[in-house]
Amino acid sequence: MPPRRPVRSLLLAETIAIGSELLVGGRTDSNSLRIAEEFGRLGIGVRFKSIVGDDRQDIRTAVATAAGRVGVIVLTGGLGPTVDDCTREAISDATGRRLALRKDAFEALKTRLAEWGRVPNAGQRRQALIPDGATVIANPVGSAPGFWMKWKGALLISLPGVPWEMEAMLRDSVAPVLSSELTRARLRPSPITRLVFHTFGLPEAEVDAKIKGLVKPSMPVDLGLLASPTGVLVSLTTRPRPVLSGPRLQRLADGVRSRLRDQLYAEGLETMEEVVGRLLTAQHKTVAVAESCTGGLIGHRLTQVPGSSAYVDRGVVCYSNQAKTDLLGVPPALIEGHGAVSAEVAAAMARGMRERSGVSVALSVTGIAGPGGGTPTKPVGLVYLGLDAEGGPSATREYRFSGDRMVVKQRASQAALDLLRRWLLERAEPV
Amino acid sequence: MPPRRPVRSLLLAETIAIGSELLVGGRTDSNSLRIAEEFGRLGIGVRFKSIVGDDRQDIRTAVATAAGRVGVIVLTGGLGPTVDDCTREAISDATGRRLALRKDAFEALKTRLAEWGRVPNAGQRRQALIPDGATVIANPVGSAPGFWMKWKGALLISLPGVPWEMEAMLRDSVAPVLSSELTRARLRPSPITRLVFHTFGLPEAEVDAKIKGLVKPSMPVDLGLLASPTGVLVSLTTRPRPVLSGPRLQRLADGVRSRLRDQLYAEGLETMEEVVGRLLTAQHKTVAVAESCTGGLIGHRLTQVPGSSAYVDRGVVCYSNQAKTDLLGVPPALIEGHGAVSAEVAAAMARGMRERSGVSVALSVTGIAGPGGGTPTKPVGLVYLGLDAEGGPSATREYRFSGDRMVVKQRASQAALDLLRRWLLERAEPV
Repeated sequence: MPPRRPVRSLLLAETIAIGSELLVGGRTDSNSLRIAEEFGRLGIGVRFKSIVGDDRQDIRTAVATAAGRVGVIVLTGGLGPTVDDCTREAISDATGRRLALRKDAFEALKTRLAEWGRVPNAGQRRQALIPDGATVIANPVGSAPGFWMKWKGALLISLPGVPWEMEAMLRDSVAPVLSSELTRARLRPSPITRLVFHTFGLPEAEVDAKIKGLVKPSMPVDLGLLASPTGVLVSLTTRPRPVLSGPRLQRLADGVRSRLRDQLYAEGLETMEEVVGRLLTAQHKTVAVAESCTGGLIGHRLTQVPGSSAYVDRGVVCYSNQAKTDLLGVPPALIEGHGAVSAEVAAAMARGMRERSGVSVALSVTGIAGPGGGTPTKPVGLVYLGLDAEGGPSATREYRFSGDRMVVKQRASQAALDLLRRWLLERAEPV
Repeated sequence: MPPRRPVRSLLLAETIAIGSELLVGGRTDSNSLRIAEEFGRLGIGVRFKSIVGDDRQDIRTAVATAAGRVGVIVLTGGLGPTVDDCTREAISDATGRRLALRKDAFEALKTRLAEWGRVPNAGQRRQALIPDGATVIANPVGSAPGFWMKWKGALLISLPGVPWEMEAMLRDSVAPVLSSELTRARLRPSPITRLVFHTFGLPEAEVDAKIKGLVKPSMPVDLGLLASPTGVLVSLTTRPRPVLSGPRLQRLADGVRSRLRDQLYAEGLETMEEVVGRLLTAQHKTVAVAESCTGGLIGHRLTQVPGSSAYVDRGVVCYSNQAKTDLLGVPPALIEGHGAVSAEVAAAMARGMRERSGVSVALSVTGIAGPGGGTPTKPVGLVYLGLDAEGGPSATREYRFSGDRMVVKQRASQAALDLLRRWLLERAEPV
């Protein structure tokens, strides 16, 4: 048998997501994606992901399996106060470390519950049970503490499954622990760099054709394409070794940018609504939205951005024809003549919205999201967009989207925000 | 060592999803949820799910691990024509079965490509390489064939990762094979039934306390609890054996219902917006929504439901104070006196919305979604709801939500729809 090489394996990680709803409940594990991203920055590669139910024996099996193949194991979930939460017990079974009530964890738990005007019950008290020799990881946003320990040369980390709790603890506590363990082991892995480019307006095959040949097979970088209702994503992911130099990766990134041109709307984690918000802020412009078939989705997306109250003035959802007339002054005769789903009505909605609100630019959407309501001449998926700006020409666009009701709404909202983005770019000061 | 019992383990399954984009690429594995659903109908429980990259050694490790703990192994992905597709080779490595070109599979592949006007290249020819002793699974909608084999008392099944190809092969070929293998092993498992109950308004610990003791440890059913921003979900999942009779399961379900009372807003796949839509439709009522901090999310959710145009009249997103006055007639003095985030303004928004639109009932939301904008007396997460109905008393509610901007918006939208649901229930005809 070859000797153990625990130091090497600190660069290999496995996530174990716990929860029966992840096995059969229609819910997917997204925590592991965030963990892989954060670990990539440290140069640690997530090689395996496992999902098990709330079953003490199965969790124990998963932990033992992971310990045989990686050096960093991260469990998420199963730390709650209810009877089916048994990650603590399963880790104790797997590692042989006994559980005991940890005073500092219990005090923190009591303090947190007191903020919510409550005292711990028996189940919540269980949340302060921590295996011998483990270090408590404070939960800055919820009640369940996490913990980490060294075991058989591996680092075993247990975090809650609630995404925002998991994420805060990953960033605040887990990343620093891993950094210092890597340093202690004299490992200086190069970060796994993943560059992401978001495009809108081209089908996947056309994006593929545009970037074909850019990445040679000999280069230590993986090119990825991923289609979704909001566009096609292009990614460049470096491998931990051989190392691709920063300048060479930047040349590749520039190649992607120049081939995708203005179809590229964002990079990295930036979203379309953040891009639009940044452009509106820089140009000191305000926006208002008149939505029919998107039903409020564009307003919702614009206001997901912190600070959006500085440029989002208002929105209206005018589902009924009466609302289009009442709220936006669209003439009933125009609706009768062209139909509520028409370029003419989209233009009138945007104009009415801008004139009544006094904003710099107004967007409008009217369409047929389906599944009902389509006709041979106006099928499901037909969407008209309008844009009306102070002192500028107005614009309308026609789209025919495929997909179910939710997908049509998503595509229509993305197209509307992209129309606004392009309008703002044309007006941007040259840099 | 106890004797192997391969027959028993046919009731335990593991899925292995293959693809590097599932490790780091921001994409989650949804194939395994479909497999768990289909297997549940057959009485086979998916106990473990694994995800590995396009790495021959890692896939081999995952297959060997699965063979040690379950009787049915389903791999998805890695059967494509490109160099990174190596599931065939990894299965051959793990099982010791040699790969050889299978004539019937190659003919089917050529026929499929010919339909698309193409001939197989070297990579596509590799798709017809099948391990010795495996049975080919025809792909009715794509080019990559799958295969299944018996190995060490387990069934090993390999399917493409493209969801609609995987799904067709699962339904047309895999389910019949499993049925006949279960019959041959004289196993008649009962289907796994999963009942889901959605609650809103109670923290997880309180829901847990309410249903405590209902499911005795001796009963062959698993009780699950799951908290999310939109509430706590309770589930009852039967085990393949011993069989819980239908009437006994129904008695348990009735027990959950009577303990959760009106905190239970929906069962199964139904959503809050569908429940509200159903009640509005039955009572021939219309609704309008005045949103500030939720930014259009309530309108978006209400209009996700097909046919919602029958009862959703309109919405306004009044982010600025000016918009609250313009669109809803909220007096500027009221905003100055109490602040935009106050019960008084919430009430005035709902009243203005209903009076101007003429709907049966209007909802309003005003709050501080964060992360900025909070003060000591009005912290981030403070939300006021208003409801105003024709001829009825109006209502306001105060909430203090925790979580980030997105979570506060989700919780506020759920609370607003729940307020509407409760109002509609009070007015429902007794059944």
